[in-house]
Amino acid sequence: MTRESESPFDVLRRLFHEPSRLAIMSALCAADDELSFKELKETCRLTDGNLNRHLKTLQEAGMIRVRKAFVRDKPRTSVSISPDGLTRFTEYLGALETVLRRAQDALGAGKKADAAPPFAKPVRA
Amino acid sequence: MTRESESPFDVLRRLFHEPSRLAIMSALCAADDELSFKELKETCRLTDGNLNRHLKTLQEAGMIRVRKAFVRDKPRTSVSISPDGLTRFTEYLGALETVLRRAQDALGAGKKADAAPPFAKPVRA
Repeated sequence: MTRESESPFDVLRRLFHEPSRLAIMSALCAADDELSFKELKETCRLTDGNLNRHLKTLQEAGMIRVRKAFVRDKPRTSVSISPDGLTRFTEYLGALETVLRRAQDALGAGKKADAAPPFAKPVRA
Repeated sequence: MTRESESPFDVLRRLFHEPSRLAIMSALCAADDELSFKELKETCRLTDGNLNRHLKTLQEAGMIRVRKAFVRDKPRTSVSISPDGLTRFTEYLGALETVLRRAQDALGAGKKADAAPPFAKPVRA
């Protein structure tokens, strides 16, 4: 899945970097099982339209499973993460961590550290 | 700069989340002083067109300073991070870290951890 020549920044370019999709994938990871459309919508603070759009993108990429059923005569949409989605999301988080560490190191190492509000630890006591 | 009601996901929606701009800001943070257009282009592995476009976006937002001068009769473009850019980028990295931690915790806490390749530490010996 990961190409040798790829930098962590390249990995970010893919599916999960969009903040709403990152929120959706995190919510699905945290769930023991499926989440309903309503639960996802509330957790991720998205509109129906936006959530639908992002779910479609993730489903088409095979990252999630969307199940539609009737519960007490009402239609209910349930969403879960797919095994492939889990593997790819884990890979993405690894890349994100690498990029974050580099930026934090850069911030800490440069002259800039004195001019900025401290990020990781206070520069001045 | 940060609004009370904002979630870390909202902060990501802003300027720095685009991977090329994240790479540019990290490179500028790591530099002691200015970086030339050529240095930035090589460090961030961007084309002239792409780098120009992202520099324009960052400059218009006041996040960087772009200086044009002649060095040995040749035009030279030098780029540095602005004090405001440094403050905002530091804020962004903080939000990114929060979002990453949440996703990692979700991945570790859910049932999913057994099915996925371990992210932070091995699940199986």
